[in-house]
Amino acid sequence: MPKAQPIEFYFDFSSPYGYLASCQIDAVAERHDRKVLWRPYLMGAAMKLTGRKPLVVQPMIADYTRVDLARSARRAGVKFSLPDPFPVATVAACRAYYWLLEKDEEKAKSLAQALYVAFFVEGRNIGEPEVVTDVAGALGVDRDALSAALQDPAVKTRLKQVTDDAVARGIFGSPFFIVDGEPFWGNDHLKEVDEWLETGGW
Amino acid sequence: MPKAQPIEFYFDFSSPYGYLASCQIDAVAERHDRKVLWRPYLMGAAMKLTGRKPLVVQPMIADYTRVDLARSARRAGVKFSLPDPFPVATVAACRAYYWLLEKDEEKAKSLAQALYVAFFVEGRNIGEPEVVTDVAGALGVDRDALSAALQDPAVKTRLKQVTDDAVARGIFGSPFFIVDGEPFWGNDHLKEVDEWLETGGW
Repeated sequence: MPKAQPIEFYFDFSSPYGYLASCQIDAVAERHDRKVLWRPYLMGAAMKLTGRKPLVVQPMIADYTRVDLARSARRAGVKFSLPDPFPVATVAACRAYYWLLEKDEEKAKSLAQALYVAFFVEGRNIGEPEVVTDVAGALGVDRDALSAALQDPAVKTRLKQVTDDAVARGIFGSPFFIVDGEPFWGNDHLKEVDEWLETGGW
Repeated sequence: MPKAQPIEFYFDFSSPYGYLASCQIDAVAERHDRKVLWRPYLMGAAMKLTGRKPLVVQPMIADYTRVDLARSARRAGVKFSLPDPFPVATVAACRAYYWLLEKDEEKAKSLAQALYVAFFVEGRNIGEPEVVTDVAGALGVDRDALSAALQDPAVKTRLKQVTDDAVARGIFGSPFFIVDGEPFWGNDHLKEVDEWLETGGW
């Protein structure tokens, strides 16, 4: 039997639903003996093509989204509050992730989780490179090396490639999952991802 | 114990996800001994405020939506295909529904279901008043009386009121459910509605 493919988990660090999914995706994957590839990307690149704006700046939809986010967080049993400022640029957060990924996959995931907590639980502005290096530093990452990496052309290129590839594959949202080639968009679809893995699809 | 409130089910006749929800909402409600108030409205009025466009005309999102619609239909075990033309105006369909609702609530629901089937299964253009009267006629509704009703100022006012009230209450999508005052947007949330009714919320 061929080895089961990992679940690809695309997200933007400034996406509240991405954060909520990040708190749950590993448990879903474990239930089905799958790995998860965490793939932060710059969703803004896709939004330029789709013409979408963040939910919380859309009239009417913003009010509903605040209700739904709080409700979804309660249901998932995780802390959450919408930060201010929001949304923020996530270039530094993404670059830090991919730089660290080259060295230590587990630590890179820990950094992604810590950045999400810093933003959506502690309200820290992860749009600022200093906050990113602080969060990484608390995990034992070398701050100076990371600061330098944030301007490293190779790291910049890596992030650009991930983002371009995502868009080329039709990925535009956060969270966005690819499960055995099948695309699932949105935190609401996590249950469906779970059932897809359980049943092999329908 | 006070009588349980009905589930309010808002939808647009031109909404594929509204159609998919219409095939499932009654079963969800029955499990919890609830009634469903079927509330077609002109979602376009809300979209003028939110600035949204239909999913199937948004770049990238359109492609995903076609995959997701087909997958959601398979999962629900219902026939579905995206009609052409799409979307269509749903004024006549809505007016027919509210006119009939005054006379016979069950038959009005049957009409709503038949209009959805005509559009999303048979590919008939329910934007045309003649198609609406045809579909209603097949259910035993008086076609001439309905044709006249479609231009009746009282019927027009009723639809305008339903739509204005919906927008005033923050309803903007299809399907959109109100369950004991709690708003749920999207066919993907039907499971959550089910669990909310089961548990009393969280």
